[in-house]
Amino acid sequence: MENFILTNENAIYFECGFSCDNVIYLNLGSERYFITDARYTIEAKEFSKNCQVIESKSGKDLIETAKKILKKSKIKGIVFDPYDFSYFLYESLSSDSKIKFIPEAHFSKIKRIIKKDWEVEILTKASQLGRDGFKNLAKYIKEHGYKQKESFLHFKAMENMSQVGKYDLSFSPIVGINANAAKPHALPGNKKLRTNDLLLVDAGIKYKRYCSDRTCTANVDFNTLSFERKQTFRNKKYQKIYDLVYKAQLNAIEKARVGMKASQIDRLTREVIEKEGYGKYFVHGTGHGVGLDIHEFPNINPTSDVIIEDNMVFTIEPGIYLPNEFGVRIEDSVVMKNGKAKII
Amino acid sequence: MENFILTNENAIYFECGFSCDNVIYLNLGSERYFITDARYTIEAKEFSKNCQVIESKSGKDLIETAKKILKKSKIKGIVFDPYDFSYFLYESLSSDSKIKFIPEAHFSKIKRIIKKDWEVEILTKASQLGRDGFKNLAKYIKEHGYKQKESFLHFKAMENMSQVGKYDLSFSPIVGINANAAKPHALPGNKKLRTNDLLLVDAGIKYKRYCSDRTCTANVDFNTLSFERKQTFRNKKYQKIYDLVYKAQLNAIEKARVGMKASQIDRLTREVIEKEGYGKYFVHGTGHGVGLDIHEFPNINPTSDVIIEDNMVFTIEPGIYLPNEFGVRIEDSVVMKNGKAKII
Repeated sequence: MENFILTNENAIYFECGFSCDNVIYLNLGSERYFITDARYTIEAKEFSKNCQVIESKSGKDLIETAKKILKKSKIKGIVFDPYDFSYFLYESLSSDSKIKFIPEAHFSKIKRIIKKDWEVEILTKASQLGRDGFKNLAKYIKEHGYKQKESFLHFKAMENMSQVGKYDLSFSPIVGINANAAKPHALPGNKKLRTNDLLLVDAGIKYKRYCSDRTCTANVDFNTLSFERKQTFRNKKYQKIYDLVYKAQLNAIEKARVGMKASQIDRLTREVIEKEGYGKYFVHGTGHGVGLDIHEFPNINPTSDVIIEDNMVFTIEPGIYLPNEFGVRIEDSVVMKNGKAKII
Repeated sequence: MENFILTNENAIYFECGFSCDNVIYLNLGSERYFITDARYTIEAKEFSKNCQVIESKSGKDLIETAKKILKKSKIKGIVFDPYDFSYFLYESLSSDSKIKFIPEAHFSKIKRIIKKDWEVEILTKASQLGRDGFKNLAKYIKEHGYKQKESFLHFKAMENMSQVGKYDLSFSPIVGINANAAKPHALPGNKKLRTNDLLLVDAGIKYKRYCSDRTCTANVDFNTLSFERKQTFRNKKYQKIYDLVYKAQLNAIEKARVGMKASQIDRLTREVIEKEGYGKYFVHGTGHGVGLDIHEFPNINPTSDVIIEDNMVFTIEPGIYLPNEFGVRIEDSVVMKNGKAKII
């Protein structure tokens, strides 16, 4: 039986089906404790599974309650995630305790790397809703996007992706026009959208707490704009780079197999791009797992040794970024099923 | 000369006038280092003041660079904030180091408790822009809010407060109708807005990285709705509680003085509410400092011993929450000037 402690909202949701922003979760062998404050106890008791809900006052009192439970238990050691734990919490809980606190990096995310069938279903639905958001955004831009600023379009991306507040967003969308699409971290600016521009949108929504994640790079034509993967650009260089990124992505989606190392899938996109001499402009990994967190395991990059298995869900998102010119990224989320990758 | 290390974005911005989401900042006596990755170095060099920008690869490499600089320096001890530091970072930096890592809770926020005049100016402008947002939202609700859902109004609050994406939000707004206004942590739901409802909106925007924060509780009349502090409710109980909260807030704003303890200002709101027997429904502190972070010092609550000084900026936000009925909160941000509180 495991002993571990969690404070991360998503990690706790995964354990017991409920979570909130002020909770310490203890798994001590077969006993599980959800320690929270009065604002959350009613819902915690109703929705959490297989754990005892303990009401505490806020802040320090949660820690005191956890210390008491730990002291009463007979455990010798307890696992925590050093990335998710503040030094303050570590010190407060471990000082004058006989229990050994054992750091295990990312242990909750490692647990969640292979999705259960019901999680794949939810992630698939999240992806569909994300697609609906992109469709609504394309319609909006065709009708009203001409000469609108990036920062305004960014807001409209939030509006359309969330279906006007119906769904939470996985993250604040990235909306970049031409040269701004070449900066993976760009904040939306004052650049205005015009015909024949290149428009990159990276966005996702949450459905039942699970994230969708997708990036489209589109040719801007206010009659025909769409966020489909097939794109025809007026600008020939845009088209050349787009086709190359598309070919790289397709190569990975078609050839990814269960049993490969994650680094081999990274290779499948990178080799296509390197062959044409653009390797140094593909400045990030090929993808990342998606689940309750927008970034989960497996990482799909040149150094990731994870063996790919059925029911892993991750993104495949090669990109080429030509500084001060433009950038192209094409990202879809896939699930491994029957040994192969399937876009969700 | 001080030695300290920071990773918090706002704390670093305060030190050097620039920040980003991947940086370690070292202040070693008179030497200051801004260690970041290639995505940010150009801007860091352009905008940061009095520090050396060092380009590193991402992730672990930043930590390695920091370790090397620390090793070369002759310092014996360095201060860090245990609330802002992961156990991982602490371990990575302090293991096999001869330097003593000294935890000092909230040391950056303590530094920022008295605002400089230029900070007060920016915060005042942020508040004005926040007010504009509330005005736009009131106009929208009058014209289009009838029978709209809370979750939709929440989105419209984001749209109007941000001026359609022009300004970042200080936090995700709280929008509660009637009984939902009684839950300080409520997520927006499906409840629809109707005439004579009570509508609570807590929202703010960021101007030059500084936050505004304000809460209005309004009578819903689609002809006259406004988020001014003067409110006339059709429902008599709403009016009674509103008037009491308003009186409590006014008492604190009028009587707050430099030289008082923060707890005495808390007392000024609480005594008014307690006198009428509603003390147990005022479930939080009277206010909190506002600055680069939405929650700064001083805390205005029953146990806060901080002596109030000129140029402190904080909220005064008493509330009464009647479970399953309704809640009222009235929040304004004030600056202490010439010994007294002034709403910004």
